[in-house]
Amino acid sequence: MQNFVYGNRTKIIFGKATEKTVGAEIAAYAKEGEGPLRILLHHSGGHAVKSGLLDTVKESLKGAAVEWVELSGVKPNPRLSLVYHGVEICKKEKLGFVLAVGGGSVIDSAKAIAMGALYDGDVWDFYDHKKVPAQALPVATVLTIPAAGSESSISSVITDERGPWKQGVNDECIRPVFSILNPELTYSLPPYQTACGVADMLAHIMERYFTREPHVELTDELCEGAMRAIIRNARKIFNGNSQDYDARAEIMWAGSLAHNNLLSTGRIGDWASHGIEHELSALYDIAHGAGLSIIFPAWIAYNIKEDTPRLARFAAKVWGVDGAYYDYEQAALEGVFRLKNFFRSIGLPVSFADAKLPADRIPEMAKRTVRFGPVGMYKKLDAKDVEAIYRIAAKEL
Amino acid sequence: MQNFVYGNRTKIIFGKATEKTVGAEIAAYAKEGEGPLRILLHHSGGHAVKSGLLDTVKESLKGAAVEWVELSGVKPNPRLSLVYHGVEICKKEKLGFVLAVGGGSVIDSAKAIAMGALYDGDVWDFYDHKKVPAQALPVATVLTIPAAGSESSISSVITDERGPWKQGVNDECIRPVFSILNPELTYSLPPYQTACGVADMLAHIMERYFTREPHVELTDELCEGAMRAIIRNARKIFNGNSQDYDARAEIMWAGSLAHNNLLSTGRIGDWASHGIEHELSALYDIAHGAGLSIIFPAWIAYNIKEDTPRLARFAAKVWGVDGAYYDYEQAALEGVFRLKNFFRSIGLPVSFADAKLPADRIPEMAKRTVRFGPVGMYKKLDAKDVEAIYRIAAKEL
Repeated sequence: MQNFVYGNRTKIIFGKATEKTVGAEIAAYAKEGEGPLRILLHHSGGHAVKSGLLDTVKESLKGAAVEWVELSGVKPNPRLSLVYHGVEICKKEKLGFVLAVGGGSVIDSAKAIAMGALYDGDVWDFYDHKKVPAQALPVATVLTIPAAGSESSISSVITDERGPWKQGVNDECIRPVFSILNPELTYSLPPYQTACGVADMLAHIMERYFTREPHVELTDELCEGAMRAIIRNARKIFNGNSQDYDARAEIMWAGSLAHNNLLSTGRIGDWASHGIEHELSALYDIAHGAGLSIIFPAWIAYNIKEDTPRLARFAAKVWGVDGAYYDYEQAALEGVFRLKNFFRSIGLPVSFADAKLPADRIPEMAKRTVRFGPVGMYKKLDAKDVEAIYRIAAKEL
Repeated sequence: MQNFVYGNRTKIIFGKATEKTVGAEIAAYAKEGEGPLRILLHHSGGHAVKSGLLDTVKESLKGAAVEWVELSGVKPNPRLSLVYHGVEICKKEKLGFVLAVGGGSVIDSAKAIAMGALYDGDVWDFYDHKKVPAQALPVATVLTIPAAGSESSISSVITDERGPWKQGVNDECIRPVFSILNPELTYSLPPYQTACGVADMLAHIMERYFTREPHVELTDELCEGAMRAIIRNARKIFNGNSQDYDARAEIMWAGSLAHNNLLSTGRIGDWASHGIEHELSALYDIAHGAGLSIIFPAWIAYNIKEDTPRLARFAAKVWGVDGAYYDYEQAALEGVFRLKNFFRSIGLPVSFADAKLPADRIPEMAKRTVRFGPVGMYKKLDAKDVEAIYRIAAKEL
């Protein structure tokens, strides 16, 4: 087990009707003698408006004497141009807090704005690994899509549409101070978005689970248990009732835990699949979760001879593959098949062909994936390896 | 699943040699323009001194220009009289921080002192449920005994030796700001203390696991996984090498997670066994963990007809009992036997007789257990129920 530092300051406010407390929670951040707190209210302009959630939030803000400037228009794979706009507003209006109402894209955009608001240079510097952020405005969230875990993570991923380049920042300064999670808000999510969220949270756990670090039994157990709970409850939502509160609640809480870093304590995660997927969604603008359901099975299949017992254990513990019958490699491959079958069963693509993506820019994507050097820790992957993974993923299966 | 608020501010600094960072971590709490930070350095005077740990800590404090006043003498089942003494010192010397170097008893004592230092009345008011603490000095810990989880919990349990009465406080203000966990520091723990710690952390999880709240699958999975990891790694320490770093690390981290409240999110725990045990250790001054290894199996046996499927699931998932062969009740009872066998295998008592305790004050203990009303949420227990549990525990088995 590796040495580690673990802490997660995000206060999670979970359950029915909790979005009504957002105003009171934010008001606690007002500074004495500075008048009412003025915040940026950031959202996509879509679902949160139509569903009435935004009205509820505004009412709660009003009730707590919190003033806001609204910035909507966040798209999936959130864009740098909107971030620039938000930074400008925060600086001009001297806003002191950023509230994201939405899913991972809105939250990631809010985090970027929060860093940019307190920085004199170009906020892209942080994403381009040129600078480390010194500070950010406090960020809070009302989560509508359980997926990215961004609501309690230190991560933000932004796309510079001029590239297109998709890059990430990980810094403690952008971890939300609080996040409100009401599973009821996810009842009306389109099934495809629910499925993408499930793939994203499973991927967050798999990135941590596939480690070469020995003696991480406790976190192995926690990862496996969380994956089983996600799979079972996704099945309930897709094969049963999409308004099953308890299944929605399990999925929503699992999405946060998947990415709050508890599950990586003492381990070294992989994260190659995320890097490989980012090129796919940057280029073709498909949902991140759908990109992951294409890439991750291919990543496992490509690595089948790398610490095969761990891959077989994944198959046995998470997918119920009988390890006593198969040999390790057969068991591991059976795990890949079941992972794919699960993704397909909730309507996700598992190949380029499934998603109707062309396979003609693979070498270019592979090259960009490794532009900062080899990716992954389970096995360090160079351009050739990444290309091979894209080619496995490209095949009709 | 119940609505919940979850957050845990404690920064965990985990791994080899991490105790050397304690000075630098504390120095960050010095206030500008107020000169060097002055702290209370609290410990038992025993193991931490002999092992050289206290010297390492002092060197680190010196290196970071942190000044200290020392207060040693904490005993298991920490006493109110020493807490009073610590409060007096903090007030007189105007100390601004409390560092606990030791196990749960030292940490609980430090928490009590931290509350008392900023309170004009009698700190026992908080333990006697007469007052709610408004604030406390910041507390940090260097943990030497993985057990109580006090290093990242909001709990403190103190014994007023005039009674003897053992009472607890749960408040966010006493959650440690940071805790240093180096598994190497636990190599030299006597086996009995290691075993008591294992019982304590298992009990912390079982108190949360035995709930009537339906639809808590994710946290069920996390609880079961953590219990399995504790059991397997305890076996490694007791049947293998007591200086197995990785096994010690799994146990140490599990002890924290067991009691940091993540595992109770969305659920309503039971906590009757803790209440029943407290009377035992208050009266006979046995270790809390040894009291729990006596009481918990009796608690399960007494409740065998209360939601038997959950007790059977505990037997199946945690102890490998084949649920397909036994009926639920048989499976659940087999789980109790295996739990007892495990406790015995690591040298713990599972009955009054094992611990050479007399059974003649059972009615008195039962009465005191329920002095604030029935205990437990799995089944509300009155004096008659508690007495029956003590009587099951009293039997030679």
